[in-house]
Amino acid sequence: MSSGSRILCSQLRDKIMSAEEAAALIPTHVNIGMSGFTGAGYPKVTPTALAKRIMDANLAGNKFKIGVWTGASTAPELDGALAMVEGIELRLPYQSDPTCRKRINNGEMEYIDIHLSHVAQFVWFGFLGKLDIALIEVAGILEDGRLIPSSSVGNNKTWIDQADKVILEVNSWQSEKLEGMHDIYYGTKLPPDRLPIPIIRPNDRIGTPYFDCPPEKIIAIVETNSPDRNSPFKDPDADSKRIAGHLLEFLEHEVKKGRIPPNLLPLQSGVGNIANAVLAGLSEGPFEGLTAYTEVIQDGMLSMMLSGKLESASATAFSLSPAAIKEMNQNLDLYRDKIVLRPQEISNHPEVIRRLGCLAMNGLIEADIYGNVNSTHVMGTRIQNGIGGSGDFARNAYLSFFMTPSQAKGGAISSIVPMVSHVDHTEHDVQIIVTEQGLADLRGLSPKQRAKQIIENCAHPDYRPALRDYYRRSLELSPGKQTPHLLEEAFSWHLRYQRTGSMHA
Amino acid sequence: MSSGSRILCSQLRDKIMSAEEAAALIPTHVNIGMSGFTGAGYPKVTPTALAKRIMDANLAGNKFKIGVWTGASTAPELDGALAMVEGIELRLPYQSDPTCRKRINNGEMEYIDIHLSHVAQFVWFGFLGKLDIALIEVAGILEDGRLIPSSSVGNNKTWIDQADKVILEVNSWQSEKLEGMHDIYYGTKLPPDRLPIPIIRPNDRIGTPYFDCPPEKIIAIVETNSPDRNSPFKDPDADSKRIAGHLLEFLEHEVKKGRIPPNLLPLQSGVGNIANAVLAGLSEGPFEGLTAYTEVIQDGMLSMMLSGKLESASATAFSLSPAAIKEMNQNLDLYRDKIVLRPQEISNHPEVIRRLGCLAMNGLIEADIYGNVNSTHVMGTRIQNGIGGSGDFARNAYLSFFMTPSQAKGGAISSIVPMVSHVDHTEHDVQIIVTEQGLADLRGLSPKQRAKQIIENCAHPDYRPALRDYYRRSLELSPGKQTPHLLEEAFSWHLRYQRTGSMHA
Repeated sequence: MSSGSRILCSQLRDKIMSAEEAAALIPTHVNIGMSGFTGAGYPKVTPTALAKRIMDANLAGNKFKIGVWTGASTAPELDGALAMVEGIELRLPYQSDPTCRKRINNGEMEYIDIHLSHVAQFVWFGFLGKLDIALIEVAGILEDGRLIPSSSVGNNKTWIDQADKVILEVNSWQSEKLEGMHDIYYGTKLPPDRLPIPIIRPNDRIGTPYFDCPPEKIIAIVETNSPDRNSPFKDPDADSKRIAGHLLEFLEHEVKKGRIPPNLLPLQSGVGNIANAVLAGLSEGPFEGLTAYTEVIQDGMLSMMLSGKLESASATAFSLSPAAIKEMNQNLDLYRDKIVLRPQEISNHPEVIRRLGCLAMNGLIEADIYGNVNSTHVMGTRIQNGIGGSGDFARNAYLSFFMTPSQAKGGAISSIVPMVSHVDHTEHDVQIIVTEQGLADLRGLSPKQRAKQIIENCAHPDYRPALRDYYRRSLELSPGKQTPHLLEEAFSWHLRYQRTGSMHA
Repeated sequence: MSSGSRILCSQLRDKIMSAEEAAALIPTHVNIGMSGFTGAGYPKVTPTALAKRIMDANLAGNKFKIGVWTGASTAPELDGALAMVEGIELRLPYQSDPTCRKRINNGEMEYIDIHLSHVAQFVWFGFLGKLDIALIEVAGILEDGRLIPSSSVGNNKTWIDQADKVILEVNSWQSEKLEGMHDIYYGTKLPPDRLPIPIIRPNDRIGTPYFDCPPEKIIAIVETNSPDRNSPFKDPDADSKRIAGHLLEFLEHEVKKGRIPPNLLPLQSGVGNIANAVLAGLSEGPFEGLTAYTEVIQDGMLSMMLSGKLESASATAFSLSPAAIKEMNQNLDLYRDKIVLRPQEISNHPEVIRRLGCLAMNGLIEADIYGNVNSTHVMGTRIQNGIGGSGDFARNAYLSFFMTPSQAKGGAISSIVPMVSHVDHTEHDVQIIVTEQGLADLRGLSPKQRAKQIIENCAHPDYRPALRDYYRRSLELSPGKQTPHLLEEAFSWHLRYQRTGSMHA
């Protein structure tokens, strides 16, 4: 395509420049709100150009660091490049990049792990400091200057509204047919002037398909033609299939009992192998007329739409494999009517999630015998990714599922432990735990009743005797018996793993 | 007053009976939904009569136990009496009775600690099993059978709707002028048919002042004339006043910075000495035109209304001292326009709390250096009361404060510890911690940045060196440095206390 053809606003043409020129407009010690939610819709070239600028500055002895705020995770060209050159002072609200993670866990970079529904409003409230620059990928610019969002929405509306200056990347790799798929809600206000969010069905449209951006804020426009970068889809492994099987069996049971409608309730699904296995299971399962109100549209959802099982889906981003992106772009006219992409403060809004009654399905790192869940910290201290939207959904869902294989590292780690080493979801927010071993339905159970379910249904058989032993002795010796524990050995499994490489005694 | 004068529905007159006769209609192994939220509006005589019946049955060798569901805590005549005779199989969702607490911590009684906003909907969803009987105190019965709620609303609407049978206590001690003060919302539905809760100002009325109850469900009516039972108001002690002082100074600062409106935002305030000190401080402070959207109306709020500082308050219950009750009953006409009592699924609804942007102020048992809060378990295993509504408010508030004296037991316990022994509010939900020592503003801080604030501003000076030492060594030796910990000594302070009676080394 010819240069500039996605930039229809003539007034803005003189802002077109190279990534290097755009990066040169970014001073040190600013906070930058970047687009990106999973490997979708992040700026593709300016962050890398900025990383080079930072490297040069640092080599010249001039400390150059920035604050990086995003929707959620991004890709190596953004988080990886900036973390590699030690360019990030503070990162929020979610990341999953290996270099970034290493810097954080080495103590070389500050990271704030925030509920995704909190991010936009905290910026509006002035709680996170000044946002200096917004750096946003869009799919195009209309004649009147409105922006066509790209393959993720994330916090882009808030970044554009709140930043002093805006840098745009116009990515012609993104399908032009994305236009019309987004629903940008401009009705959010500050308390005490807030009104109800008027969504009552998952695919209700309450906003406009475009971002508004005052042209005078725009200091640079960079043209790109670069693909999104999400991992290829892997076929579900045996454990994931078993987990999905337990979950589907449970859903069928709940429908039979009349506790869920036959077309279920809006699905929220985390990303990854287990989530895709669940979607594959639903695709072959007995439920019809499904809907999704979730964060990301994954491969599995597209095939459920093609087969007619999934009627509509609301999300804030695509998280599709290269093959699925190709397929989607070929059939975008079909998908456009069924998919709504929203700002993440709406996709993750507690008000809407509770009203719709989502079925929340999220992964975990470890759960304890009383149903507390650690979603973020390996052995209590090393951040993995972040809490993301799991808290927004788990607490407000109709049903809150947490899913994991019962073991990790070839059996050296039990996902079910006496006490979790970090808590992201408390006993009050976890209803159903599923492993390949089985499902623990914790609804209406006291902590002691939960312990039996979790140990016997979810833990790997190799770890059950030790868990039973811990529970039995806790029940006997714990000073209080609401949540029996032996504090002196509550973390002994983690410590043993750190010492010997295995949680097994 | 003459017998029966509060029961205007002639059709129901033949259901009037004694508490003993009513208790005789309750079989074993039923779940009973009782009224009561703090020492207000709980049934006064039938639970005690039931306790005697249970004692007789147990003495005769017939095991008699029931499930007790309430709004929140009640009083000795209910929780105390039933727990004393070992009559409670399962208790939910909140309690604060010494006998009840002892039974739970001895392992003699099951207890489920639930977010107060979850309770009604979980019953509607069928997640807690069958509710057999509702036992509800009301202030009167209208000619057409509608019920005038009493001094708390709690889950009464849900209990009446969901139970097969209803037993009413009509308490003529409650002022007749309570009529019209309540707002019972009948618009809740099950997903997928839920609609927005149409509250946009704290005192909006969206329902009716009465409970509907099919007369055929009513199996007994017991007339009573017994007072509510809340603790007398104590003048704030020095520490509470200091905590209130720090909090008020912070609010003034936020108003100056433009981050809160001059009349603040709707206040939510836990119960107790510190909360009353904050209210007393606000009563003398510079802020005018205040509102409250909270769970309970306390003494301090009444005086703020009399002085004109507090324009209106929404709650689900009164929690007033005997002196304040007397004063309120004398001036009920004045208060009726300013106070709305709602079902607790509305007073605690995340949708409404987030929309209004409440300032949430709650107590805690202990906080750790990274900002995790334990609200429920002493030394990790002994339940104190329960989470109550603190989670509903803390996560959805505009600002979420947690307040505590920095020490307990004369200095033997530090309220700031290396790692909390139980987590109710995660690092993601705690924004500001206040002790008599000072205030830690955790907004926009990473865990390591929080640690410095909490140790230096909130911990008691006697404990600061040991906390600094733990943090310093963790920073050096922790495998991961996002949330540095030494798992082998994370609970050493709690274990030392259990061993020696003091957390001091």
